[in-house]
Amino acid sequence: MTHFRPVKLEHASRLVNHGPTVLVTSASGAHRNVMAAAWSMPVEFTPPRIAVVIDKRTYTRELVAASGAFGICLPGTVLADLTYAVGSKSGRSVDKFALHGIAAKTGPVLGVPLIESGCAAWLECRLIREPHTEDAYDTCFAEVVAAAADERIFDSGHWSFRDDNVELQTIHHLGAGNFVRAGGVLRAQPL
Amino acid sequence: MTHFRPVKLEHASRLVNHGPTVLVTSASGAHRNVMAAAWSMPVEFTPPRIAVVIDKRTYTRELVAASGAFGICLPGTVLADLTYAVGSKSGRSVDKFALHGIAAKTGPVLGVPLIESGCAAWLECRLIREPHTEDAYDTCFAEVVAAAADERIFDSGHWSFRDDNVELQTIHHLGAGNFVRAGGVLRAQPL
Repeated sequence: MTHFRPVKLEHASRLVNHGPTVLVTSASGAHRNVMAAAWSMPVEFTPPRIAVVIDKRTYTRELVAASGAFGICLPGTVLADLTYAVGSKSGRSVDKFALHGIAAKTGPVLGVPLIESGCAAWLECRLIREPHTEDAYDTCFAEVVAAAADERIFDSGHWSFRDDNVELQTIHHLGAGNFVRAGGVLRAQPL
Repeated sequence: MTHFRPVKLEHASRLVNHGPTVLVTSASGAHRNVMAAAWSMPVEFTPPRIAVVIDKRTYTRELVAASGAFGICLPGTVLADLTYAVGSKSGRSVDKFALHGIAAKTGPVLGVPLIESGCAAWLECRLIREPHTEDAYDTCFAEVVAAAADERIFDSGHWSFRDDNVELQTIHHLGAGNFVRAGGVLRAQPL
């Protein structure tokens, strides 16, 4: 039974507002891939747009250029090892989904592979072609066309980090396989 | 006594790799400003380059366009209220440094105002003019020309999140004044 529920597009930026490390999924023809990316951010609320750095030497970049689409999946703490693994090895000669036994569903709008098990949320994204920034900064802009989240941690447009959902809490890569977990909510008081 | 120590430029990307919410500082002539930004990311290790979204309607954007420079300061949990406050109010008609009693030092290379008290680190950045992405996505690219961090939380090129430095741990904005704190380090194991 899935706990994933659709997220309204006007709330999609909230999924990545706090800077989680993500999995970038892609497919073209019979090929598919998944890699980790620590460098992504929203750039616009409506229409929801994001930017993500995908090195031009990666297989993912090749598949994204060919298909014009990619997925952004937010691994929970339970997938920290997997995130590091798929971020350390190219998928050019191996299907990392098969290698690691990762179940993928098919995105509703663009058909990109999306990961739900162990993830807090996903966003299906249509590449906005920007040849200069893709070339100069490896920065790919995209519009979010569909999004969903596990209702146990993101519900009605809001995150809820609690003691009972640590496994789904987002991870943030410090480098070399060391992650911090988002947790310990602080509520700002007016000054 | 300051605990800030220079960070090698090749390690600068590590300061923002985990997606913290930052304070963007700027100055032009006699004017200066500080705003909060949740949307930033590294885009290159060497030379160290970052991207940050600065809305074209903000006073910060005006000062950055005029000076070609800005600072990125990483507020610790102790500055959560201040971060939300400076992110909610324009500095066009008020000096937020004076209003909130924020001490600023002068950046070593470009002279931008930088905040150390309550912050974990700062990066001094030189804008790379990219008129199209600035206009279409409010995304400003920049090269990091100097960086420093509080040695109690970032030392010898590495973060160290511990029980004794919670006040300096980075904050990550969920929206509407709710932040999560980076903490609870996970070490990925090889798969």
